[in-house]
Amino acid sequence: PPSCARPLDPPPPHPNNPAYSERAAAAALDTMAWHYFRSGSGDERTLRENRAAFERHRLLPRVLVDVERRSLATTVLGRPVGWPVLVAPMALHGLACSDCEAATARAAAAMDTVLCVSTLSNLSLEQVRAAAPAAPQWFQLYVQRDRGVTAELAARAAAAGYEALVVTVDAPLLGRREGAVRHGLRLPPHLGLGNFSPDVGAAMLAHRNAGDSSLAAHFAVTSDPSVTWRDLGWLRGLSPLPLVLKGVLRPDDARRAADEGAAAVVVSNHGGRQLAGAVASLDALPAVVAAAGNRLEVLMDGGVRRGTDVLIALALGARAVLLGRPVLWGLAVGGETGAARVLELLRDEVDLALALAGCTSPAEVRTDLLA
Amino acid sequence: PPSCARPLDPPPPHPNNPAYSERAAAAALDTMAWHYFRSGSGDERTLRENRAAFERHRLLPRVLVDVERRSLATTVLGRPVGWPVLVAPMALHGLACSDCEAATARAAAAMDTVLCVSTLSNLSLEQVRAAAPAAPQWFQLYVQRDRGVTAELAARAAAAGYEALVVTVDAPLLGRREGAVRHGLRLPPHLGLGNFSPDVGAAMLAHRNAGDSSLAAHFAVTSDPSVTWRDLGWLRGLSPLPLVLKGVLRPDDARRAADEGAAAVVVSNHGGRQLAGAVASLDALPAVVAAAGNRLEVLMDGGVRRGTDVLIALALGARAVLLGRPVLWGLAVGGETGAARVLELLRDEVDLALALAGCTSPAEVRTDLLA
Amino acid sequence: PPSCARPLDPPPPHPNNPAYSERAAAAALDTMAWHYFRSGSGDERTLRENRAAFERHRLLPRVLVDVERRSLATTVLGRPVGWPVLVAPMALHGLACSDCEAATARAAAAMDTVLCVSTLSNLSLEQVRAAAPAAPQWFQLYVQRDRGVTAELAARAAAAGYEALVVTVDAPLLGRREGAVRHGLRLPPHLGLGNFSPDVGAAMLAHRNAGDSSLAAHFAVTSDPSVTWRDLGWLRGLSPLPLVLKGVLRPDDARRAADEGAAAVVVSNHGGRQLAGAVASLDALPAVVAAAGNRLEVLMDGGVRRGTDVLIALALGARAVLLGRPVLWGLAVGGETGAARVLELLRDEVDLALALAGCTSPAEVRTDLLA
Amino acid sequence: PPSCARPLDPPPPHPNNPAYSERAAAAALDTMAWHYFRSGSGDERTLRENRAAFERHRLLPRVLVDVERRSLATTVLGRPVGWPVLVAPMALHGLACSDCEAATARAAAAMDTVLCVSTLSNLSLEQVRAAAPAAPQWFQLYVQRDRGVTAELAARAAAAGYEALVVTVDAPLLGRREGAVRHGLRLPPHLGLGNFSPDVGAAMLAHRNAGDSSLAAHFAVTSDPSVTWRDLGWLRGLSPLPLVLKGVLRPDDARRAADEGAAAVVVSNHGGRQLAGAVASLDALPAVVAAAGNRLEVLMDGGVRRGTDVLIALALGARAVLLGRPVLWGLAVGGETGAARVLELLRDEVDLALALAGCTSPAEVRTDLLA
Repeated sequence: PPSCARPLDPPPPHPNNPAYSERAAAAALDTMAWHYFRSGSGDERTLRENRAAFERHRLLPRVLVDVERRSLATTVLGRPVGWPVLVAPMALHGLACSDCEAATARAAAAMDTVLCVSTLSNLSLEQVRAAAPAAPQWFQLYVQRDRGVTAELAARAAAAGYEALVVTVDAPLLGRREGAVRHGLRLPPHLGLGNFSPDVGAAMLAHRNAGDSSLAAHFAVTSDPSVTWRDLGWLRGLSPLPLVLKGVLRPDDARRAADEGAAAVVVSNHGGRQLAGAVASLDALPAVVAAAGNRLEVLMDGGVRRGTDVLIALALGARAVLLGRPVLWGLAVGGETGAARVLELLRDEVDLALALAGCTSPAEVRTDLLA
Repeated sequence: PPSCARPLDPPPPHPNNPAYSERAAAAALDTMAWHYFRSGSGDERTLRENRAAFERHRLLPRVLVDVERRSLATTVLGRPVGWPVLVAPMALHGLACSDCEAATARAAAAMDTVLCVSTLSNLSLEQVRAAAPAAPQWFQLYVQRDRGVTAELAARAAAAGYEALVVTVDAPLLGRREGAVRHGLRLPPHLGLGNFSPDVGAAMLAHRNAGDSSLAAHFAVTSDPSVTWRDLGWLRGLSPLPLVLKGVLRPDDARRAADEGAAAVVVSNHGGRQLAGAVASLDALPAVVAAAGNRLEVLMDGGVRRGTDVLIALALGARAVLLGRPVLWGLAVGGETGAARVLELLRDEVDLALALAGCTSPAEVRTDLLA
Repeated sequence: PPSCARPLDPPPPHPNNPAYSERAAAAALDTMAWHYFRSGSGDERTLRENRAAFERHRLLPRVLVDVERRSLATTVLGRPVGWPVLVAPMALHGLACSDCEAATARAAAAMDTVLCVSTLSNLSLEQVRAAAPAAPQWFQLYVQRDRGVTAELAARAAAAGYEALVVTVDAPLLGRREGAVRHGLRLPPHLGLGNFSPDVGAAMLAHRNAGDSSLAAHFAVTSDPSVTWRDLGWLRGLSPLPLVLKGVLRPDDARRAADEGAAAVVVSNHGGRQLAGAVASLDALPAVVAAAGNRLEVLMDGGVRRGTDVLIALALGARAVLLGRPVLWGLAVGGETGAARVLELLRDEVDLALALAGCTSPAEVRTDLLA
Repeated sequence: PPSCARPLDPPPPHPNNPAYSERAAAAALDTMAWHYFRSGSGDERTLRENRAAFERHRLLPRVLVDVERRSLATTVLGRPVGWPVLVAPMALHGLACSDCEAATARAAAAMDTVLCVSTLSNLSLEQVRAAAPAAPQWFQLYVQRDRGVTAELAARAAAAGYEALVVTVDAPLLGRREGAVRHGLRLPPHLGLGNFSPDVGAAMLAHRNAGDSSLAAHFAVTSDPSVTWRDLGWLRGLSPLPLVLKGVLRPDDARRAADEGAAAVVVSNHGGRQLAGAVASLDALPAVVAAAGNRLEVLMDGGVRRGTDVLIALALGARAVLLGRPVLWGLAVGGETGAARVLELLRDEVDLALALAGCTSPAEVRTDLLA
């Protein structure tokens, strides 16, 4: 993996937007990691649609508003954050940077936002927490077949100071990302799965010739496809942390989430990596927002690349968005510095977009900003 | 034709989806056969639209459903099948594989589904039946100008153990598939039309210089463009087999099919090979389903390539779909094994799609799965 | 110009559809003539839209209709024609074939349909009439600034046996076809404007360096941009021939045409050669048909290339369509034979499309054939 | 910068439309200037949409109207102009031509229309005025942080004979035009900002290494992002000139503009250079026109390239349109002559389009001209 200790690579010629970094990352990452991170399931239609959904919207800026003083600050789950963009949970940051999730944690902290740490991190959740102890972090949870292991993960997250459990609900099985399968994802010897015992990492290595990715093999063995709404009570009881359900695309599921005591949902199709042909997150957002009413906070991820994307999502009712792959691209190109730079470029864009739209805070971004 | 006795060709580098096989088949087949199988009529707009219609749909997966135990089993015409995908009737499998329809029959049987055998098979219907005597098969019937020949075909099919007659109703004349015409379809010397006397095969050879395909010549001489709804009673009387009308795109025609005692219709435009510019099968499906009510089973074909396509068709009311060209591509690349592999890849995709959509059986796939 | 006396060039490899001929004509014609015939005005958006409008329609074929016996015959202005496709008026056939409009006249006659002869023909209207005296022909009239010349043209047309006057109403000025302007249209020395005195042809040659096409120069001098609805009475009085107004795209104009005693309108944008950005003819058709009621026959031209296009136009209410450029392509490639071949290919396609749609005559093609 | 004293470059091979000049300008301009003029903000979606919005409209020409005598004349703000196209305010003409805005002023005067002179002109507003003293000119005003400077600019404009103040309201901050940023806009030594003291130009030069364009640096320091509707009264009081608000896209903002005494609004997104993803100007036009009623004149800019574009904008309710970049392209290729040529080509196209649409004046262009 690229060394994160090295000084930031000379930037690509024109690193002037948060989208630039994808090309740079394609060059910096080894082929396997690139395809693992980049690919979507099936024909990658949902991957493309996530982006296209943003491009279909048009903004109607308001003029002659005093926008000299602006604030991007907002709250998520009642917790103040610097701006309405969080870092989405993603597995295996170690494929992008030798400091693994610690680099991302420091970048997120520097940029005053929340990092969601994946069950499938290379460092342990305690190590990631320790990397940025003053910053808010949430723990993403895959419910394990072994309910004891699940309970232990939740308890460890609470003990370490995580502020929410993000339960992924769109992955009873792992989606088939053909790009990743073709390039045979496997863990390099120096990396493990930090939240599990070392033999689990070894087990993944053992699957490397199975014709599928070792992650899919791991996932099939460990993750539980039988979780239902009736398990939410049990999940709530595992820790005092609020539950965020990630992967909700239907209004009826959002209502059920509220009924079962979830604090928030993330409208998400897992970055186009689970059900092939699933609706774009942004297209699913308005109906979920309507169904949530004021009982749930609604976040979204999938396709966010530019500052105006954030405005569009807010205008459709999202409280905040989660940024995924671009953070990995920054990490791949320049480690902690690179990840922070991507976040900074996006934050500057959100700020400029807010001003040019005639708003001075996220709260002023309402539906009538859309044509 | 490629020898089916040979071991399965080394697969193309990434045979990880049922769509891959088209490129491999283009390499394996001789030019004439490739164009005969691949081409659509006119500008091939309907051929493309069949596929595009699926790509316009978006899925709304349901989360937190226990999908650990799933079954793809369903019934068609009351007969249990392993999964809701049948093999569509297609002519001249011998152009793809020296074992002709016998290879396909064994592949379909291995994959626990129904093979529809074409009137224009290279082997006789009895030979195809004998290749997989335990599996269900349907016989596709072109009504012949010689009504005696027609009656004999129906009687033979019933006697051989076929379970339905699939009467093609969209081909009073053969559509003009320009790709095929350009490449001059003709039967190679070692192949005949198994359901007809040898001189019919010879007659086709005699037409090979007519500037049109020999199949079109054969078709014009033998098939009957004067069949009407009033002949359905006669057709029903030819055998005890239920009638399936293949090629219905209009709701009024579906209602009439029910009135005349058909058991099912296949919403189909003949793979884009008959009327140029005909509506995509999938786009025609909902109105036919509504017209059919509970009086007819509604199947469809045209454009099915991925597991999520099957979900979309079921969500729009199809009881099952028929898979066409991909089976031939598998046959061309690897004979029986290749055809079975294509079916297996698709079945795995249907299974995964079902799980990721939050369903455990075809019956749970309802319209509200579509955005 | 290519010699029409030469035997038909060996056809392009796959002359199996009426659209093939465009590429062949591009090779056969000199650059100036090719661009003159091919080009549309402005950005050629209307030229493309004429075609795209057909491609947006989908057909819903009817099945189990006895289509063994079919007839393409219909009537236009009460006159029987072999099939619902006429040859559109086009200027300067001599640029495509040394026999000029006489070749086209014989081809149209051979294919049992009407030729519309342009005011700007290279042969005189009497010469064209004499080339196919038994076939029906219509005379297209540009109203001339010199009303005496206009009256004389109408009288000559009636005397020569033309059966209708097609008055072009969409060309008060000549549209700017940039492709043609770039390639400097001028009449070669051996060609004249057959309906005018020789010095008019000489005048066109004199304009050849004007930076615009010589045709535009001729047109500006001779054609009358001040013609209005109030002149229709005068036009009707010039001859006993029925008036057909070509270039009507608006329903209010169609109603006015009926009020003023026109017998028919041609829904047309002049092949995308007049107002840049004008609506596609096919898209304008339904409203004109509705406005015409049973007071006018409605024809259309623009974008017809395939047999199913003709069905679509009939389904939207056209009595018949006019075929333009493809006839010139045939003429350029093979003179009379080539033009007739293009018409024959299209007629065969109309016949096949009719059968596959479940119709036995143009009268059975109704709106419900469209999805 | 290209010398404007040189004779007009030999024109590109086919200078027969107003859009041709873009390619020629790309060759004539240095890279920095080309990207500064050409680029839009963000992904340039709005830049493209401005154009695409025109291409979505279709015209329904009226026939048999006497169009022999036509007039393009109209009025804006009660002032007669030769045709309904004005020259949009644009900064830094000196990057295109050594005569700077004086060349543009003479070209606009020659073509009988209004030039809008930018606050950020290279010549002073008095110099531009003196270049064409008989022609109408408007002064575009960026409200400066220093309200005294703002008042002085307004007073100078009134004293110099400008006829309106065009207050830009869509630029509280400068949009991020990534193309321009990449190519590092800076003023060459021989150019200054004519309306400001020389040290302001020097200040811009000092910023040239700041990683952003020097214009953005200048803008951030001098322009005032705190201007609101409440400042309009003050702006009105600075001079007797009527106020035109440029950059209004919302109907509520248009109503407010009328309430606050503006004389006109320009529906504009600043040529796609301010808020990325803003609605296309043409798409925003109809709602603004409806909101304006008869209280405001409504102009528009963004994407106008062809004569039929002007008709479309008028049909949607614009009183006139502003032409931007094409004038710079003409200037870059041929100085005053080149700019006038672009305007002349467009005027000829408007005239022809009017005639072919069946109109004899801008007043006759109404909504029913659109399909």
